[in-house]
Amino acid sequence: MSLIEALNWRYATKKMNGKAVPQEKVDLILEAARLAPTSSGLQPFKVIVITNPDLKQTLLPHSFNQSQIIDSSHLLVFAAWDTYTEDRINGVFSHTHNERGTPPESTTDYQKMLINSYVPRSEDVNFNHAARQAYIGFGMALAEAAIQKVDATPMEGFNNAEYDKILGLKEKGLKSVAIMPLGYRDETGDWLAGLKKVRQPKSEFIIEFK
Amino acid sequence: MSLIEALNWRYATKKMNGKAVPQEKVDLILEAARLAPTSSGLQPFKVIVITNPDLKQTLLPHSFNQSQIIDSSHLLVFAAWDTYTEDRINGVFSHTHNERGTPPESTTDYQKMLINSYVPRSEDVNFNHAARQAYIGFGMALAEAAIQKVDATPMEGFNNAEYDKILGLKEKGLKSVAIMPLGYRDETGDWLAGLKKVRQPKSEFIIEFK
Repeated sequence: MSLIEALNWRYATKKMNGKAVPQEKVDLILEAARLAPTSSGLQPFKVIVITNPDLKQTLLPHSFNQSQIIDSSHLLVFAAWDTYTEDRINGVFSHTHNERGTPPESTTDYQKMLINSYVPRSEDVNFNHAARQAYIGFGMALAEAAIQKVDATPMEGFNNAEYDKILGLKEKGLKSVAIMPLGYRDETGDWLAGLKKVRQPKSEFIIEFK
Repeated sequence: MSLIEALNWRYATKKMNGKAVPQEKVDLILEAARLAPTSSGLQPFKVIVITNPDLKQTLLPHSFNQSQIIDSSHLLVFAAWDTYTEDRINGVFSHTHNERGTPPESTTDYQKMLINSYVPRSEDVNFNHAARQAYIGFGMALAEAAIQKVDATPMEGFNNAEYDKILGLKEKGLKSVAIMPLGYRDETGDWLAGLKKVRQPKSEFIIEFK
């Protein structure tokens, strides 16, 4: 299935049927998120994968009791760095040089430039920037899920602070930004399943300068 | 080519060869962005497509003189709503009801809830929220470009305020968030072309709660 076909097939599944997504498909979805490009390659986010039923039950009331939290087999939580720090930035480049066998000096100036422009900014500005990068990965995961014919619901409707506390994200320097239950649609029980997908018409969505 | 293969093939092309991307491929890339899911289906962003050589030349100095601006055949500018307003929110739902033939009353409460929670927030908070949605579409466009074997460079390194002024975005209630030149890599002239793609290892990128 092409990506365009997959994007037309997918929708924000409101009711899932409880069937489990095979691990190999989950792995592909996570791999798409991992391969997503990010600003300066910093990858300032991680994905938390929750299959534990008790934990999903604990998160349910902090998710407006939306049933996908417990009817999905895998609940993905995308969490972004709470800020940029010198150590975090240098850590990424150090890893890159290890992997490529390139000399650390080759990016010294670039790292300094990033550190000088990012680190003095407010945590809020930095977190917002990191969150945007996480959303690229979020999009890639949604794309791969649709290609794999796995239903996924992109959700912002949850209590971020409670999620962060329950999952111990603060201690990891992370803040949750969006969640994505993975499962399979309940065709008969989902009011949204049969409704036409609506988007802005191309003529409004695209502005051309020829 | 699978999405995972495509994501491994793509990289942030630093030097393009000037060859033009066929319009049908550009259309697929834009369609992927248009089909991207967004919070409450509001689609608070648009894509500006620039092929005009003079305009690209004008934007070049406001893009740190990065050569992809002029060596790409199509320069995409992703621009998000500068804020959420009652009119904009109601406009989206009105369009959806027209397309689906559903009664406008069916979403009155939901629209009110969105308006009451979004409109009183600061423009900055709203713009940041809209920008995140644009990044989902940005990710989808990058994914489709890679599948079509079109090179695309995700870029934040440009002067947003100058872009907004030159493209007249303020008058449209939009602010630029990220740009994406489309073209083809110059294999021999691009220092990044041969380097290994590096990402966080899975063991660090993924946190599991089983």
